[in-house]
Amino acid sequence: MTREGGSELEKNKRRAPIGVFDSGLGGLTVLRSLHRRLPCENLVYFGDTARVPYGTKGAPTVRSFARQDAGLLVDRGVKMVVVACNTASAFALDHLQETLPVPVLGVIEPGVTAALQATRGGVVGVIGTSGTIRSRRYQEGLLAGGLSEDNIMALECPLFVPLVEEDKMGQTMMHLAVQEYLQPLKDACVDTLILGCTHYPLLKEDIGAFMGPETVLVDSGDMLAEAAVKLLREKELLRRDSLEKDEANSTGEMSFLLSDLPWKFADIGERFLGRSIEDTTIVGLDEMEAAGYQHERDNHD
Amino acid sequence: MTREGGSELEKNKRRAPIGVFDSGLGGLTVLRSLHRRLPCENLVYFGDTARVPYGTKGAPTVRSFARQDAGLLVDRGVKMVVVACNTASAFALDHLQETLPVPVLGVIEPGVTAALQATRGGVVGVIGTSGTIRSRRYQEGLLAGGLSEDNIMALECPLFVPLVEEDKMGQTMMHLAVQEYLQPLKDACVDTLILGCTHYPLLKEDIGAFMGPETVLVDSGDMLAEAAVKLLREKELLRRDSLEKDEANSTGEMSFLLSDLPWKFADIGERFLGRSIEDTTIVGLDEMEAAGYQHERDNHD
Repeated sequence: MTREGGSELEKNKRRAPIGVFDSGLGGLTVLRSLHRRLPCENLVYFGDTARVPYGTKGAPTVRSFARQDAGLLVDRGVKMVVVACNTASAFALDHLQETLPVPVLGVIEPGVTAALQATRGGVVGVIGTSGTIRSRRYQEGLLAGGLSEDNIMALECPLFVPLVEEDKMGQTMMHLAVQEYLQPLKDACVDTLILGCTHYPLLKEDIGAFMGPETVLVDSGDMLAEAAVKLLREKELLRRDSLEKDEANSTGEMSFLLSDLPWKFADIGERFLGRSIEDTTIVGLDEMEAAGYQHERDNHD
Repeated sequence: MTREGGSELEKNKRRAPIGVFDSGLGGLTVLRSLHRRLPCENLVYFGDTARVPYGTKGAPTVRSFARQDAGLLVDRGVKMVVVACNTASAFALDHLQETLPVPVLGVIEPGVTAALQATRGGVVGVIGTSGTIRSRRYQEGLLAGGLSEDNIMALECPLFVPLVEEDKMGQTMMHLAVQEYLQPLKDACVDTLILGCTHYPLLKEDIGAFMGPETVLVDSGDMLAEAAVKLLREKELLRRDSLEKDEANSTGEMSFLLSDLPWKFADIGERFLGRSIEDTTIVGLDEMEAAGYQHERDNHD
């Protein structure tokens, strides 16, 4: 017996998992936020660990990869696709929203909304990969929200990702990088700082210590989980039991697809997800390459 | 009129370019060594900038990528394939040598040979990516050359690549990384150190300053160029004018294929090659994906 209402088809749709993809393992911080907010939804995560990182790469490449990543999740019957990767959100979200048969949510808009709510009229800062910052998506969102160009400061922080992956949090090398990248933000009296990369929530302590308690740090993952609830509800795709339980009584299952098993997978994965990762499937290069194209062909039929 | 002897077919074979591939732009240091040693040979470089880096990724992934990279060069009619990437040499050289219709040369064997010649009976060190070090290819080569396990110290240095790409040579952050990674090698009185990654020649000054003048630094690129001359001569594939001119009178042309145009391409490329990069072609994801498989099918016919 089920408590879900509506037709069989609608019930099955609601019971389908939410798909989440990222360039690698950083998106596990977003998965964590989603699981916390929606503990009874099933989540399928795809990390493109074979081709990570996306943040240094050009727009056409990131768009091609994102199409394959999302196609892979759609092939697995997800009811919604979450683009956990900031760079993929910056370059591919519009394209995916136009072409995929399910709702697609990115991390940039929720981050922008949260920053606009948090700022007390000062400067809003954004930090991210080269791709994310050069795409100007965060900047355009903040401008559309009423900020002036003078009240926005966006900076690339390319060494943060490798330093987080090498677990340098709290160490001298990280302090040096934080100071080098964030000093201009401090000088500009930033009151709100968007952490525009899935790796950066792990840097909250280092960044917070440098910027001081006056600066609000906006973590896109948490904001995205709220936006996901809203979108699922609108589309009538939310499981009926979705919001009734807390994380401790979670019934939602997580499964993991990766395009490569990296040398330090268990170690890095656990750091991002906050628990050990089980049920991991490696997707071969050929299946991955076929996914995006197959799916695009389906759409054109 | 040509001074090349032999049949038309043989002449054409000798005039074909040498193909060089790498996970990204690091292999340009190897291209530079090849051009210096063989200034009249044409060189075609493929950098898999869309999927860089390889050093953190697993063996099956690296092997799949290397097959496509080499296939792409073979499709362009190269007379020899040079695997400039240490990680790809570690995981894919045997496979490529078995399956490609042209001679294939990797960077590991030349580096091992040079280190065995240079050592004065002390400990030989090897530094590289996680993949290269965990493959144990360098270690096995040194063991086969007569060293004992006690006289070999191999260490992963994962932050060197991003620090070089961010141009941190000579800076405090690099000093910290050099000290963290290389102190055990210094403590073990290493007399010869193999720079087992294409990025590391750019670190010669930082590493040399830390290790001291007594430690010989082995740059695989230079050794590989010597091995290439030898192999081309054996296979009668060396251009007749190949060794007659010096670099200043070079007639050899270089062309560049990349799978992605990275944000900082011009900057990083010039640092590695020592001159600006012209004649760059971007190879689309679909062509790249087709290359390896196409070629493998050809071989199985």
